[in-house]
Amino acid sequence: MERRQQPKDHIILGIDPGTNTMGYGLLAVRSGKPEMVAMGLIELHKLGDHYTRLGRIFERVSMLIEHYQPDELSIEAPFYGKNVQSMLKLGRAQGVAMAAALAHKLAITEYEPRKIKQAITGNGAASKEQVCEMLRRILNIAPESILSKLDATDAMAAALCHFYESQRPLPANGTSSWKDFIAKNPQRVKL
Amino acid sequence: MERRQQPKDHIILGIDPGTNTMGYGLLAVRSGKPEMVAMGLIELHKLGDHYTRLGRIFERVSMLIEHYQPDELSIEAPFYGKNVQSMLKLGRAQGVAMAAALAHKLAITEYEPRKIKQAITGNGAASKEQVCEMLRRILNIAPESILSKLDATDAMAAALCHFYESQRPLPANGTSSWKDFIAKNPQRVKL
Repeated sequence: MERRQQPKDHIILGIDPGTNTMGYGLLAVRSGKPEMVAMGLIELHKLGDHYTRLGRIFERVSMLIEHYQPDELSIEAPFYGKNVQSMLKLGRAQGVAMAAALAHKLAITEYEPRKIKQAITGNGAASKEQVCEMLRRILNIAPESILSKLDATDAMAAALCHFYESQRPLPANGTSSWKDFIAKNPQRVKL
Repeated sequence: MERRQQPKDHIILGIDPGTNTMGYGLLAVRSGKPEMVAMGLIELHKLGDHYTRLGRIFERVSMLIEHYQPDELSIEAPFYGKNVQSMLKLGRAQGVAMAAALAHKLAITEYEPRKIKQAITGNGAASKEQVCEMLRRILNIAPESILSKLDATDAMAAALCHFYESQRPLPANGTSSWKDFIAKNPQRVKL
């Protein structure tokens, strides 16, 4: 099976979008090795209005892209939600973050939460703490600097998951697009 | 009951977002009277990739805003869909269009399809053809120039609905935000 060429040095922006907080993680790939650049949260829950929240997501994701100049966006994207209202709201938050990436010509890949946990810990049902602990070891992050940003670890995990996927023998098994997801999971899509 | 002040001349961008086609309508309000400026479709169904479609929405809505300089976005926003997948996709399309508006500092108001039909025809269950015919009469549009753009009429109807709502005695009854919608329709929201 053909292996991908060693990718050039590049930066992956990981995003875990939500309507209350949005986590982000910036992961550099240098000489084929992943290194943490930055991680943090975009706080939205104090902003009352739905549109103000969406506007803040667009503004902050655009700022992150302009500052760190990532090449790709890796986004945590659950395909299932409690109900149609929560999925519509989540879709809007994802759409706004994606718009910022598309406006800056970043390639987008999305991964299901389970896939990300599996890639980082080997267990698709791992807890947030387990994902955090594995990230800390892999990226050699001091415990005190990651624990205060626990909610941003899912975003960094999305970025690292994308790095691992880019290292896999072709064809990659990642869910790289909606079309792929549907093709690979016909039983999970109700049309 | 207090009436709103006659608004200054302004332009409303109406959008009917979808993942296959996105309709738009630009409505000028001059001396308190609505006038059609432009209407049309952003064709998406020929673009295979989901992200290419979202990117096209952002690009075209941004271009429309830069060209026509509207002051407000009025968006047709169904709160119900067949299933969570279709709502997630719709939410993304809405989110991308909203991001373009938010990046250009437009105020956003959303209306349910039923509300728009009611505002234009007096019947919340009116057909697309009935909405089109009423729009044609109200805005004095030649039949041949509107019939070829039937799918864009929902977008123009959203813009006209927003104009009517801005003329109503305060408080307006429009669904102006998600919070308002939930507050006014608690029985329709499953949390």
